[in-house]
Amino acid sequence: MTQPQTVDVPLEDRSYKIHIGSGLIEQLGTLCAPFIADRHVVIISDEKVASHYLPKVESALESVTSRGNSLVVDEGETSKSLDTCYQLWQEMIELPADRKSVVVALGGGVIGDLAGFVAAGFARGIDFIQIPTSLLAQVDSSVGGKTGVNLPQAKNMVGAFWQPKTVVIDIDVLETLDDRNFRAGLAEVIKYGLIMDDALFTRIESSMEAILNREPAIITELIQRCCQCKADVVTEDETETSGRRAILNYGHTIGHAIEAVYGYGEYLHGEAISIGMVAEAEMAKALGMVDDVFCDRQKAIFESAGLPTTCPAGKEEALIEAMTRDKKVASGKLNFILPTKIGDVESVATPGGEAIAAALKACS
Amino acid sequence: MTQPQTVDVPLEDRSYKIHIGSGLIEQLGTLCAPFIADRHVVIISDEKVASHYLPKVESALESVTSRGNSLVVDEGETSKSLDTCYQLWQEMIELPADRKSVVVALGGGVIGDLAGFVAAGFARGIDFIQIPTSLLAQVDSSVGGKTGVNLPQAKNMVGAFWQPKTVVIDIDVLETLDDRNFRAGLAEVIKYGLIMDDALFTRIESSMEAILNREPAIITELIQRCCQCKADVVTEDETETSGRRAILNYGHTIGHAIEAVYGYGEYLHGEAISIGMVAEAEMAKALGMVDDVFCDRQKAIFESAGLPTTCPAGKEEALIEAMTRDKKVASGKLNFILPTKIGDVESVATPGGEAIAAALKACS
Ligand SMILES: NC(=O)c1ccc[n+]([C@@H]2O[C@H](COP(=O)([O-])OP(=O)(O)OC[C@H]3O[C@@H](n4cnc5c(N)ncnc54)[C@H](O)[C@@H]3O)[C@@H](O)[C@H]2O)c1
Ligand SMILES: NC(=O)c1ccc[n+]([C@@H]2O[C@H](COP(=O)([O-])OP(=O)(O)OC[C@H]3O[C@@H](n4cnc5c(N)ncnc54)[C@H](O)[C@@H]3O)[C@@H](O)[C@H]2O)c1
Repeated sequence: MTQPQTVDVPLEDRSYKIHIGSGLIEQLGTLCAPFIADRHVVIISDEKVASHYLPKVESALESVTSRGNSLVVDEGETSKSLDTCYQLWQEMIELPADRKSVVVALGGGVIGDLAGFVAAGFARGIDFIQIPTSLLAQVDSSVGGKTGVNLPQAKNMVGAFWQPKTVVIDIDVLETLDDRNFRAGLAEVIKYGLIMDDALFTRIESSMEAILNREPAIITELIQRCCQCKADVVTEDETETSGRRAILNYGHTIGHAIEAVYGYGEYLHGEAISIGMVAEAEMAKALGMVDDVFCDRQKAIFESAGLPTTCPAGKEEALIEAMTRDKKVASGKLNFILPTKIGDVESVATPGGEAIAAALKACS
Repeated sequence: MTQPQTVDVPLEDRSYKIHIGSGLIEQLGTLCAPFIADRHVVIISDEKVASHYLPKVESALESVTSRGNSLVVDEGETSKSLDTCYQLWQEMIELPADRKSVVVALGGGVIGDLAGFVAAGFARGIDFIQIPTSLLAQVDSSVGGKTGVNLPQAKNMVGAFWQPKTVVIDIDVLETLDDRNFRAGLAEVIKYGLIMDDALFTRIESSMEAILNREPAIITELIQRCCQCKADVVTEDETETSGRRAILNYGHTIGHAIEAVYGYGEYLHGEAISIGMVAEAEMAKALGMVDDVFCDRQKAIFESAGLPTTCPAGKEEALIEAMTRDKKVASGKLNFILPTKIGDVESVATPGGEAIAAALKACS
């Protein structure tokens, strides 16, 4: 059996540990004891994840608290809304939850972002614990403290930086994750290799079969390495002010535009950024930053992971409009994170129209 | 003419200055220049305050930015809601505001709390500046970073600790503040004397006529001293974890219950805590912590300020129920901040029923 791994996220008084391994839900009591210590617990989950794991989590936490409630919302991105927050806050008052209550987020990125923001806003901020269950949440969204919800006009527009007290990643739960969501999570795993860890990239290239078979040893290793990458970036730039954290957005400028133009739900986030990375690499090539070898190698890994690398043609103008709108809201400028080689990226401000055209051509 | 005063709030990278004086709105450009520097500004105000001061503030800020918008909400506590936040966030996206935009809160405590939380949540937190216009906001709510909104079941239940970049207090705006709100603000001024500054208390006692005439010299002095008190407490306990910040809640346990039982609006907050302090002093007396002299002197100062010291009898049970509910949500325990002498208080956990009965008898 694979040994559990840990990754530290050192953020002064907001520091925490990420635990990664098999069978960790059974050990939740021990792992969470210091953060719960008989306090009231509110588990927030979605219908699907709850049906698989809520009873196990509830019973594992019984050893550390006698007071707990579970609040379950619909599955899917539409639950990441202010309306759902409002509803959860009201339900928490009725329980009643108090300033000492601890929120436990049990689910994918939707639940982590939602429950994190619910914890950040309740009584001006209460503790919370992440138990991410999708691969995307395990390697990305559960680490780093970005929480929030969508507004009808823009994703993740309302939120807070609110760090969890700990993150418990039980790889066994991936068993029930459908293939499409598993592959979408892989897109983020590959992204870490591309932006900052060439050895990780090579490891994924050479282990794709074992990864797609979800063999525990390689899955634990990948998640541990991704969490370490994310922790390094977050430690350097906790609140996205120095610019360092922006490297995580490789593939995201075009990826977000694809999500917006084709409608959320048509492409999963991981699928959209897979296409986005392919397109943005073409942009980098047009700017002379990478060569054909880079682009081919990157495309090949996404293909071997079963991820899409193009989307239907004919939406170029809509994509440009969506990118412009997205960035106006986010920062006032149209920046791209572009690769220079496997394991390294640079920020490029407003590349010329030709490079953008090359990118859009490549993805359609 | 009275010289402008400043108070520092030293909170590491969240430190800021409070400016207090006459004619400061005209100097807003200079005072806010470092925090705006040509960035997009969103002024949030209420109908009444906007009608008096919005054009002045807008024109004063023209010297430091060419891009600004104003969003005006209804006056009154009902605007401190998630619905209003939702509406403001949507309006901000339409402008569009971005991560670099700066929110300016122009109004009383309702606007400061609301606009502060809007700033805290937009794009996971953008800068904001407080221009408090009610006496309560000038001596209390604009300093210290508590922001938030009410849920139907509980006041200030959703929010964030989010410090302003600076606070600009122009005492001239008090000219248009009605007498009742001015006196309600005085209740907080007197509270600072009672909890931590006996010299301030004596000064208020001996200057009540000049204060009620709103003479600029004494008003500037009082606001400066109150802001210094608040800054000291906040510096020691920014996020209400050590317990020190709780001293600001003298009079508030019973005060909040009075607001809840009689309906928000029946009593202004300052009026409710005036009654609350009178009642809680009686509780302290029942516990042998203060004597008759203390209680009489405290009651006399509230009376000379034209503040209520009792409310109609017959609601004792409802008050106790409201206190219990309030505190369950807030901390799980029924704590009181009780005086030991003028200028000093102590926290007392769940005093016995007799002391509570004495308190409730005293306020009805
Ligand atoms: N906070 C951050 O830093 C960050 C980073 C990246 C993405 N995100 C956000 O994450 C969200 C996407 O996350 P996601 O892809 O996990 O979406 P998700 O939470 O909707 O999960 C995807 C689907 O998988 C199901 N599921 C999750 N775990 C399962 C399991 N173990 N077994 C069976 N089914 C399971 C869910 O019920 C859901 O239907 C987006 O809202 C995105 O904005 C946040
Ligand atoms: N954040 C904190 O630390 C803190 C502390 C204490 C109170 N509060 C909150 O503050 C709020 C109460 O503040 P408030 O009493 O200022 O209420 P408010 O903002 O509603 O102002 C009271 C009334 O005075 C009007 N007004 C304000 N300034 C004026 C001026 N210069 N001229 C004419 N009219 C003016 C307003 O339009 C309003 O009608 C409550 O919601 C309370 O919870 C917050």
